[in-house]
Amino acid sequence: MKVTIIGLGLIGGSIAKDLRKANFATELIGVDTNLQHVEKALELGIVDRSANFLEGVKEADIVVLAIPVDKIITQLPLILDTINPATSVTDVGSTKKLICSTVENHPRRGNYVPAHPMSGTENSGPEAAVEGLFQEKICIVCDQEKSRPQHIALIEKMYHSIGMDIAYMSSDEQDHTTAHVSHLPHITAFALANAVMDTNDRNIIFDLASGGFRSTARLAKSSPEMWGPIFKQNQDYVVESLAIYIKHLEEFKESLLNKDESKMYKLMKNANRMRDILNGENSNLVRKKSTTTKMYTK
Amino acid sequence: MKVTIIGLGLIGGSIAKDLRKANFATELIGVDTNLQHVEKALELGIVDRSANFLEGVKEADIVVLAIPVDKIITQLPLILDTINPATSVTDVGSTKKLICSTVENHPRRGNYVPAHPMSGTENSGPEAAVEGLFQEKICIVCDQEKSRPQHIALIEKMYHSIGMDIAYMSSDEQDHTTAHVSHLPHITAFALANAVMDTNDRNIIFDLASGGFRSTARLAKSSPEMWGPIFKQNQDYVVESLAIYIKHLEEFKESLLNKDESKMYKLMKNANRMRDILNGENSNLVRKKSTTTKMYTK
Repeated sequence: MKVTIIGLGLIGGSIAKDLRKANFATELIGVDTNLQHVEKALELGIVDRSANFLEGVKEADIVVLAIPVDKIITQLPLILDTINPATSVTDVGSTKKLICSTVENHPRRGNYVPAHPMSGTENSGPEAAVEGLFQEKICIVCDQEKSRPQHIALIEKMYHSIGMDIAYMSSDEQDHTTAHVSHLPHITAFALANAVMDTNDRNIIFDLASGGFRSTARLAKSSPEMWGPIFKQNQDYVVESLAIYIKHLEEFKESLLNKDESKMYKLMKNANRMRDILNGENSNLVRKKSTTTKMYTK
Repeated sequence: MKVTIIGLGLIGGSIAKDLRKANFATELIGVDTNLQHVEKALELGIVDRSANFLEGVKEADIVVLAIPVDKIITQLPLILDTINPATSVTDVGSTKKLICSTVENHPRRGNYVPAHPMSGTENSGPEAAVEGLFQEKICIVCDQEKSRPQHIALIEKMYHSIGMDIAYMSSDEQDHTTAHVSHLPHITAFALANAVMDTNDRNIIFDLASGGFRSTARLAKSSPEMWGPIFKQNQDYVVESLAIYIKHLEEFKESLLNKDESKMYKLMKNANRMRDILNGENSNLVRKKSTTTKMYTK
């Protein structure tokens, strides 16, 4: 089976590495407008060969679109125009609603399986691609009723092969949930970095940055070219989640200003519940099997 | 040399482990009002023996106070009242100004070396103690002109032995800087956890929490009993840093609402500078030697 990866950055490169390891693809074809990325991906053996957009798309059994979400909007319709009628197409964008609406009436909408494999690091480019990035993580598949079942099955099989579990959501639910769980934490890290750099000289920050600061500010290193379009496409939900977050910060600040210790303790104790959640005592997903799927309904 | 550790939690326990590994102490004596912690620390071999407060303090060459900062305020004067006149005393509190002012006029103020070894994890208790926690991290020593030079020398030698570099600051500067670099990131994590739990059911959070969310919310697991008194003692600077942070979040939110992309990119690009800082390209501290000291002056 031929898999064409469009976009040979952190996510595209990591998917390629894992698909190779899983023996899922007989041939991995790389497409990228950044020729240095193409060269690097070939040098690192991430893909077997490179192709231009037209060739790469026409030859593939599966096309994986791993480019920034604003670029997905412009490229996805062209890909659906170009593919062999049997080809399955998926993307890895962190937003789904606008992307799905862009191809809503495309005659080949059924070939497209909107997906969001939830994993990443703060690094970018083919050199940042790592094996095992998706192991035991969740891949959200959206609006599954709009994709033909054969395409859903093959794309799920692909994500399963790299260790992912599948969760079904509407594209609206995915954008709402992801705003809180992923987009908001990135903005909090950007703002934390800016706030700390406002008030301290960089030598002091570096010297004093202990593990806590490092992990909290890590995402501030993330690529603006990738995240800008995500925040823009998901503006309403991102603004909503930012407003809720700021409300919680103000509440904490008020508890300090009012010397309301019991309130402050209550806020911290409530946050401590995250310990159980992140330690995984509350999930009903069996994560070790890469064959679980889960339906989120409201 | 006998070292008495008062408080056998994450920090006290980790210091004891490293002091043993460094052969710095001939005997490690543990004091804790929590008898389960004492039992656990003995069982894990963190200390050689336990003692009550009076014995532990009287016998020691060095007393290390590793208890919450509100408890330091009440215990430090008693320790200075009790010690052998040759004993050196240090603490590990994250705040320094109020603690220092509490013993400002104590006849044995010179025996006390106010310190803040900047390291930690989100876990607590003797089971959380780990080796190497302080390696290549900074220990802030405050108001050094108020401690007798022999006591400064011995306490620095102790922190050097567990791999730390020393930075001198006034207790006011330490509280100001630490508010931004450590206290603020903890509050941002508490608030992020609360905001996300406000808006999502816990199964969704767990299933979807990718690496980015996990690292950003990790500190939300931190102990309220330890952090409450820190925020309270450093209220003015913590409120200041929260206000600056909220201002940056509002700025980001405005750039989204106003669809001001160039502004949003500017904010992200500025935050990206944290990459260089955290990758350590800007420090003039030679971190590999545990014998460097650095003077921060304004």
